[in-house]
Amino acid sequence: MGRYELEYPKDATNLVKRHGERGIYALEKIHGLINGSQLLHVSLNPPGSPFPLTLPMIGQMGSFDRPSASLGDPLDLYIHGYVSARMFNVGRDAGAEGVPVCVAASHVDGLVLALSAFNHSYNYRSAVLFGHAVLVTDEAEKMYAMELITDSVVPQRWRNSRLPPTGAEMQSTSILRVKIASGSAKFRDGGVADDKHDLENEEALNSIWTGVVPIYATMGEPVPSGHNRIDLPKYASDFFDDFSRDNKELAINAANKKSE
Amino acid sequence: MGRYELEYPKDATNLVKRHGERGIYALEKIHGLINGSQLLHVSLNPPGSPFPLTLPMIGQMGSFDRPSASLGDPLDLYIHGYVSARMFNVGRDAGAEGVPVCVAASHVDGLVLALSAFNHSYNYRSAVLFGHAVLVTDEAEKMYAMELITDSVVPQRWRNSRLPPTGAEMQSTSILRVKIASGSAKFRDGGVADDKHDLENEEALNSIWTGVVPIYATMGEPVPSGHNRIDLPKYASDFFDDFSRDNKELAINAANKKSE
Repeated sequence: MGRYELEYPKDATNLVKRHGERGIYALEKIHGLINGSQLLHVSLNPPGSPFPLTLPMIGQMGSFDRPSASLGDPLDLYIHGYVSARMFNVGRDAGAEGVPVCVAASHVDGLVLALSAFNHSYNYRSAVLFGHAVLVTDEAEKMYAMELITDSVVPQRWRNSRLPPTGAEMQSTSILRVKIASGSAKFRDGGVADDKHDLENEEALNSIWTGVVPIYATMGEPVPSGHNRIDLPKYASDFFDDFSRDNKELAINAANKKSE
Repeated sequence: MGRYELEYPKDATNLVKRHGERGIYALEKIHGLINGSQLLHVSLNPPGSPFPLTLPMIGQMGSFDRPSASLGDPLDLYIHGYVSARMFNVGRDAGAEGVPVCVAASHVDGLVLALSAFNHSYNYRSAVLFGHAVLVTDEAEKMYAMELITDSVVPQRWRNSRLPPTGAEMQSTSILRVKIASGSAKFRDGGVADDKHDLENEEALNSIWTGVVPIYATMGEPVPSGHNRIDLPKYASDFFDDFSRDNKELAINAANKKSE
């Protein structure tokens, strides 16, 4: 059942070198990590600066040509920004190929506290994508991307907000489309991995606490605005509850997973 | 009575352009955001690649020459990594000035849900530093940095782990020191900012929930390792409790802050 799983080909750009066994190249896993991140770190090289520049931005994987495409299909990354932001100025100047960018998404799922400081670690999930970014100019594609990105903040929020967008809103908002060249993901879960010589060290074993502390993002009690008139709708409360429960379960499962 | 507050000079590299009123240049604020981040996103340009590369890493601000320096003083950034990692290979090849890097730290503190999708936002705190990274070769400085970084995971953990480091541990661990060239931070807190025309839109007001949903990282019940023999020590349990409480308070305060 099920077709084969698409992977980004390994090359010098995306290869996970340290702890290669933790490397993941499957599109579905990588795209899922990107879509599950409230913030992406988008890096590019601004013209004239000696340093790369990293901006926290909101984005989502999607396909304007085939909106029904699934997470494991080849997808573009749509990123939300403003016309005046540095990144988009760069995008405007760039040729047809676009601006080379690196997009990173990382989640810490727990602290791993070992006997030796050097065996301390995090449980984590991280993904990185490489590609070329261009400004979206087509109005229909822009609308598609804005719905996609708004619904990534709270599912169904787009259709439950004031529509349609005004002309000023459409004009003042910029969307970048990143054509993906490659990507990879890396994760760690499970318990403490101590060295044999430490596990035979009675003094260390008798004095040092070892284990995993799960860490997860929680959504708290919503604070209505001064002009809010209605009760929190179910599409929103369900999502806030799911978010907190899913993150907690994931971190606790990672902490309790038996290491191979 | 305090002295003046040091700031990174504004220039083309670090200037906060969009929402310039949210820009912060004070060393103390920027260094505090970096030190409060469990993960930093470190970006550099690997030789031969068309794309910048972003790696999630652990780091901490410090001063080897003056360990008593405070958060608002000029400090270096120490980053933990492995000899085999791409970044450090780059570091080894680099000249005395070091590898140009950008280091970003970002926290999401809440969802801001407005009437119009275009006025949706996050409450957030983010910082970015620019500098040149070199490998630390001095053994004493390496030890200083490893204690600094271990204690950023859990305060006092270094002295409560198995010491001293073995020769193999010292050799297999690499530390980068980033000499900071500039930096800035940006934040948003407070409630919903809706446009006047939306606040006069009865249909929108009667059908759309608006407000802020606080988001905060929580540390869950610690999971002891199979070889753990002792109760969780107070230095650790206190920190886990403080972490969860402080993050929650910060996000809730940001959500309830009255916007100007």
